[in-house]
Amino acid sequence: MSEVIATYLVHDAKGNLERKAEGIALGLTVGSWTDLPKVDQDQLKKHKGRVVHVEYLPEDEKVNRYFGEKRTKGLIKIAYPSLNFSNDIPAIITTVFGKLSLDGEIKLLDLQFSDELKRSFPGPKFGIQGIREKTGVWERPFVMSIFKGVLGRDLAFLRDQLKEQALGGVDFVKDDEILFENELTPFENRIIAGKEVLQNVYEQTGHRTLYAVNITGRTYELRDKAKRAVELGADMLLFNVFSYGLDCLQSLAEDKDIKIPIMAHPAFSGALTPSPVYGVSYELLLGKLLRYAGADFSLFPSPYGSVALKKEATIKVAKELTKEDLVKASLPVPSAGIHPGLVPLLINDFGQESVINAGGGVHGHPDGAAGGAKAFRQAVDAVLEGKTLGEAAAEKEELQKALQLWGEK
Amino acid sequence: MSEVIATYLVHDAKGNLERKAEGIALGLTVGSWTDLPKVDQDQLKKHKGRVVHVEYLPEDEKVNRYFGEKRTKGLIKIAYPSLNFSNDIPAIITTVFGKLSLDGEIKLLDLQFSDELKRSFPGPKFGIQGIREKTGVWERPFVMSIFKGVLGRDLAFLRDQLKEQALGGVDFVKDDEILFENELTPFENRIIAGKEVLQNVYEQTGHRTLYAVNITGRTYELRDKAKRAVELGADMLLFNVFSYGLDCLQSLAEDKDIKIPIMAHPAFSGALTPSPVYGVSYELLLGKLLRYAGADFSLFPSPYGSVALKKEATIKVAKELTKEDLVKASLPVPSAGIHPGLVPLLINDFGQESVINAGGGVHGHPDGAAGGAKAFRQAVDAVLEGKTLGEAAAEKEELQKALQLWGEK
Repeated sequence: MSEVIATYLVHDAKGNLERKAEGIALGLTVGSWTDLPKVDQDQLKKHKGRVVHVEYLPEDEKVNRYFGEKRTKGLIKIAYPSLNFSNDIPAIITTVFGKLSLDGEIKLLDLQFSDELKRSFPGPKFGIQGIREKTGVWERPFVMSIFKGVLGRDLAFLRDQLKEQALGGVDFVKDDEILFENELTPFENRIIAGKEVLQNVYEQTGHRTLYAVNITGRTYELRDKAKRAVELGADMLLFNVFSYGLDCLQSLAEDKDIKIPIMAHPAFSGALTPSPVYGVSYELLLGKLLRYAGADFSLFPSPYGSVALKKEATIKVAKELTKEDLVKASLPVPSAGIHPGLVPLLINDFGQESVINAGGGVHGHPDGAAGGAKAFRQAVDAVLEGKTLGEAAAEKEELQKALQLWGEK
Repeated sequence: MSEVIATYLVHDAKGNLERKAEGIALGLTVGSWTDLPKVDQDQLKKHKGRVVHVEYLPEDEKVNRYFGEKRTKGLIKIAYPSLNFSNDIPAIITTVFGKLSLDGEIKLLDLQFSDELKRSFPGPKFGIQGIREKTGVWERPFVMSIFKGVLGRDLAFLRDQLKEQALGGVDFVKDDEILFENELTPFENRIIAGKEVLQNVYEQTGHRTLYAVNITGRTYELRDKAKRAVELGADMLLFNVFSYGLDCLQSLAEDKDIKIPIMAHPAFSGALTPSPVYGVSYELLLGKLLRYAGADFSLFPSPYGSVALKKEATIKVAKELTKEDLVKASLPVPSAGIHPGLVPLLINDFGQESVINAGGGVHGHPDGAAGGAKAFRQAVDAVLEGKTLGEAAAEKEELQKALQLWGEK
């Protein structure tokens, strides 16, 4: 039977998790059961939520301290029949965590879709393999950089910054997520200017950099705007999906005319994820759901920066993005706090099927963004050739300067 | 100058809130300042975030216990120039709490829009005054009830349940938020059947009940679906806005063809609000933002039920929905755990400009939903006539039975 199985983390005050699980399974589906007449039970059986698993876990002292009392920690898995909802993310989220989210002491850790349900979702249009084919970059992690300080700047400023980054050899450059429609650097002009700059760099260096333009505005304008971007030759779209909704991303991803990759930005997602007690897990929100909804790239906080996630959480996100599944894999982009000295660690933690993404670690290089980008590429080459960064730096000036400035992890 | 001022609650480990505020104001706008050349400072000045207010608050022992260390608690207000974003909620949210949300230890409490910015938002199409005119109900709180146990049930079941509730005299009946497009009770058929049932009750009793049908499905279908609902004569729409996005609600609210009220359901909003440390405040999310985006009704957890909010939080939500402002007021609907015995408390806490909303407190009545609805109306009348519920129950059988079952308060 087609269904979705939700995994919840609970810290229960009463301590009977079997009863709690049964309450959720009924409360979010048929409402009541034992007091229903037999004829109603027969009719409603196929709609009834089913407790799949209840597991008691060791107490969490930090959580107990917070509540000021002992809480029973555990996992509860409930199966919801697909019959109960339409096959779209808003309906599924409302079913499994609509009213339940208001409890405030239950965290949604995972959703396990049946294969039949999975087929409702597009997944990434390109995925990792498609991005490799599109770029011709194989057997190394991608390198990406970010525009910096672009509010209030004109197109000439953006052109210069894009050129510098591309000259350094990054594979992708993304817009700043806080750059919206504006008079100085309108969406369409950014696409046209970016295309020209990157074509020039390609003719000069033979390296092609792709530019992810930030698609913003009103929900019901986004599809047409994305199509216009494609017509103008945009390489990729950056999308602040959590300021809109996952279903909106899905609509962009499954539109045949929007034939370019989509990069999902985690802006605002931090309002949903950090608590050990409630909200939604990082790996579900920034991993599985973004992938099913069709993100080719998922940016998430790296475990190294100042706004750092725990490494365990970031690894789980990357795993959800890349593991074997019915839909294509998405590229993990651990972001923030990245400098060239971290490249060995990044490749160790996230492997080749990932994107090394930096802002300050590119722009802050003594030789400017071109130097910073080169240093990243040199660091990647070093790791793949089995050299230490120190060994490589002896021959590579940009890498040497980067290591002097930021150190080797 | 047009701007939005964001108020943040912080629990800072370092203790210098002035520095933290300056870091946010720069980091979310122009990036850096003191190291910029004078000519750049002149160019970027009008884009720079401005620290409006920094306030140290008494420490929160519960939060300190949670972190296992002393945190400096305080409020920070930052003004963001409208020049930096387009006048839509996704752009504003991304600006003020996009990257910042990922910090995980900052809570967005409020957004103060300049009047110029406010004029970008539709607010409710009807608002409280418009709903009063539409219903002809004046000088008392509205009474609403909820379908119950409708998954797997057919249209005949829904018709019976709707009829019972309407016969009892409720003003509104809302769909169950987990009822999606389904074969047994499709959206369009529910509207048609509901209209017929409620017309019959009106002819029989002279009381008109309005039915809020749950609009669900894919984002890009919603507008057409809402228009179709209006064509079919739907009274109102129920919308799980937080499974979509606030901007989607706004598009429904500002569409001239969708000329019926919209009721916003808080499903999934609990993933964003409960923490004392991060996320978004109840009053901003379920109050101000829903109102600006155009919700005529906002449902939120009542302070009385098992899934209870603190009373202080619910009062703040209601105040944001109803206080004097450039846009119309929305109806507060404190929900969950409501029975007739709570009516004096509800009216005391939320006043007449609110909706008394019950599920179990209507359906669980010994005389069925009609009896439960009558008991609520009798309780409201009693309070407005200055009687105690006990006094009124001596004359009103349904109220008497309700008080026997659920008690007073």
